[in-house]
Amino acid sequence: MSVARVTEITSSSTVSFDDAVAQGIARADKTLRHVEGAWIQDQKVVVRDGQIAEYRVNMKVTFVLAD
Amino acid sequence: MSVARVTEITSSSTVSFDDAVAQGIARADKTLRHVEGAWIQDQKVVVRDGQIAEYRVNMKVTFVLAD
Amino acid sequence: MSVARVTEITSSSTVSFDDAVAQGIARADKTLRHVEGAWIQDQKVVVRDGQIAEYRVNMKVTFVLAD
Amino acid sequence: MSVARVTEITSSSTVSFDDAVAQGIARADKTLRHVEGAWIQDQKVVVRDGQIAEYRVNMKVTFVLAD
Amino acid sequence: MSVARVTEITSSSTVSFDDAVAQGIARADKTLRHVEGAWIQDQKVVVRDGQIAEYRVNMKVTFVLAD
Amino acid sequence: MSVARVTEITSSSTVSFDDAVAQGIARADKTLRHVEGAWIQDQKVVVRDGQIAEYRVNMKVTFVLAD
Amino acid sequence: MSVARVTEITSSSTVSFDDAVAQGIARADKTLRHVEGAWIQDQKVVVRDGQIAEYRVNMKVTFVLAD
Amino acid sequence: MSVARVTEITSSSTVSFDDAVAQGIARADKTLRHVEGAWIQDQKVVVRDGQIAEYRVNMKVTFVLAD
Amino acid sequence: MSVARVTEITSSSTVSFDDAVAQGIARADKTLRHVEGAWIQDQKVVVRDGQIAEYRVNMKVTFVLAD
Amino acid sequence: MSVARVTEITSSSTVSFDDAVAQGIARADKTLRHVEGAWIQDQKVVVRDGQIAEYRVNMKVTFVLAD
Amino acid sequence: MSVARVTEITSSSTVSFDDAVAQGIARADKTLRHVEGAWIQDQKVVVRDGQIAEYRVNMKVTFVLAD
Amino acid sequence: MSVARVTEITSSSTVSFDDAVAQGIARADKTLRHVEGAWIQDQKVVVRDGQIAEYRVNMKVTFVLAD
Repeated sequence: MSVARVTEITSSSTVSFDDAVAQGIARADKTLRHVEGAWIQDQKVVVRDGQIAEYRVNMKVTFVLAD
Repeated sequence: MSVARVTEITSSSTVSFDDAVAQGIARADKTLRHVEGAWIQDQKVVVRDGQIAEYRVNMKVTFVLAD
Repeated sequence: MSVARVTEITSSSTVSFDDAVAQGIARADKTLRHVEGAWIQDQKVVVRDGQIAEYRVNMKVTFVLAD
Repeated sequence: MSVARVTEITSSSTVSFDDAVAQGIARADKTLRHVEGAWIQDQKVVVRDGQIAEYRVNMKVTFVLAD
Repeated sequence: MSVARVTEITSSSTVSFDDAVAQGIARADKTLRHVEGAWIQDQKVVVRDGQIAEYRVNMKVTFVLAD
Repeated sequence: MSVARVTEITSSSTVSFDDAVAQGIARADKTLRHVEGAWIQDQKVVVRDGQIAEYRVNMKVTFVLAD
Repeated sequence: MSVARVTEITSSSTVSFDDAVAQGIARADKTLRHVEGAWIQDQKVVVRDGQIAEYRVNMKVTFVLAD
Repeated sequence: MSVARVTEITSSSTVSFDDAVAQGIARADKTLRHVEGAWIQDQKVVVRDGQIAEYRVNMKVTFVLAD
Repeated sequence: MSVARVTEITSSSTVSFDDAVAQGIARADKTLRHVEGAWIQDQKVVVRDGQIAEYRVNMKVTFVLAD
Repeated sequence: MSVARVTEITSSSTVSFDDAVAQGIARADKTLRHVEGAWIQDQKVVVRDGQIAEYRVNMKVTFVLAD
Repeated sequence: MSVARVTEITSSSTVSFDDAVAQGIARADKTLRHVEGAWIQDQKVVVRDGQIAEYRVNMKVTFVLAD
Repeated sequence: MSVARVTEITSSSTVSFDDAVAQGIARADKTLRHVEGAWIQDQKVVVRDGQIAEYRVNMKVTFVLAD
């Protein structure tokens, strides 16, 4: 038997979408043990003064539950 | 860098859909810090004896994660 | 064993979305027995001369089937 | 022959979802002629200090194109 | 007033989809109090050497929040 | 020419999802003639005291309309 | 106040999709009064011996409920 | 670099769905330059006195933006 | 036991959507045996010089697998 | 680097949904090497004379591509 | 009160998806004032001679309406 | 007349999402002639020891069928 939990997070980066994903995984790894992966659910950019100020990703993060 | 979590709740009211949203936000605010907002995902009514007995909303609540 | 039927209705009100839901439930209760609840599937407004003339809701109404 | 255009807007209110819809319709009516109606696509609340600060609706507004 | 939380889990079984659901509910019941039900969101099989090695279900589990 | 109707029902069983489907078909067959089939739209479990108390399926049942 | 019902039907034609829609509306009009319109939900073709044998449409038919 | 805009229109015809699409494209071509194509998003019929009175299509029309 | 495969194709016609479907079925029938039917997943038009130049359909074609 | 293909099949059984999945996997394994798993996309029952005659599943089967 | 409009654009780049997003935002900023952000709705690549020739993104761009 | 086929693949890279897309296109080009493009359907990351170990994309690849 194996049970995993899926939690939804939103993370952002000033650099790129890939960096936003990496930031979110790094943050999730601080509190959740055994992170297995993440599904990118949504991608947005925040614009300020005509420039992309933030790359935002919404992710479903999966991590294994210890018994 | 900024990371937020999204959690799903269902709340209900005997008064109206707007009140059900307010009840859910009030309850979320007791345990989750830094609630930023919520997206209304579903709206239902429970009927008893031909009358609306409950207004129920399912919401995705976003709150900022403290580092 | 318990079997329920789900029927789709559209109802409208000149007052509010909540009133449109109440009108639809009241009407469904006249013909269908044992209405248990309804899921709000869609919300629209009809506009005439720049004013909201009707609030319309499309609902899935659930009612228990008598054996 | 009849052709209508559909445009997407987001409007907000500090009072209620119904008021946010009304605000959006009022604003659309200032620039678009012959608004026929709107479909409520999304509903969100913005929360500040544990209180609902804004009710936001995303709507698809339909208006008739003059030939 | 009543508020419930919805959490997403993935559980698996070597026997059947129904057993995977039962395993997930049993595990959720160890940490979450007042589990009310679950909605089966996705069903998958893992295949090894041409045989079904695992039945996996992704579920949204609802449980009541104590005040 | 051939015209069929599609009706939505929800049925439940204490045994399994397959049994819930069979119960729903059996009930539909009592009132609707010429049932051709059903599409399983949703599957849920109701939990009481940490145990699965009911398997519920929501189905779209198709039956041929006699002229 | 105005309440309408929405019912789902599937109709077919050996000629074209437009004819399948017309057949379905004609059949619905025999039993349901005050048919207002229909939304085409799905279109399929049935193939026999490499030829299109049937055009099938699945429609949501709306009709006004008399009080 | 190439940027195109996508705009949503609804057009209708008393003849057929294909004609409704053609009417919509003809109308769009009067105001928008460089129309490239359209995606048919929805198809409806309006019924009056048991007859199909209008074929309506909702389309996403793409046109190239001149720099 | 019976197993069928579903394959996705896109076909086009300068005449109509129905002709595009027929063209796609005819082409599929040249390589795939036992085509049973097809579900129309998407309909698009390609526009050149303000005229509809192509009717395009995206279809899911089902064919029986010989053992 | 690793590339997998996803193919869609429909399989049926007279016994149960789980058996229909097993039948489909067994058949896919005869022609496709390295089947890794399958996602259950749809579940239907075919009814004859008021009895469930077939359990049908539509699955997306994933298999690794040999270089 | 605050009202924003949402417009849909498609932009492309020969370099990367992130560049396609940046190109689209830059172009939108030339005509629309007060661009607030964009949601990435779709990502495609165009292939020529076995090479990726274009990265295309479809975006929903939000901008504030001046009163 | 022109007919294209759409096939679904999943490819991965240890570098980035863009590289995963390029890997998938390169692999598809080895067996399928006349690849025209691909639509990115899903993006996932696989995490090992708190680090992103793989970027995975699921794509729908379109290629022209030679007569």
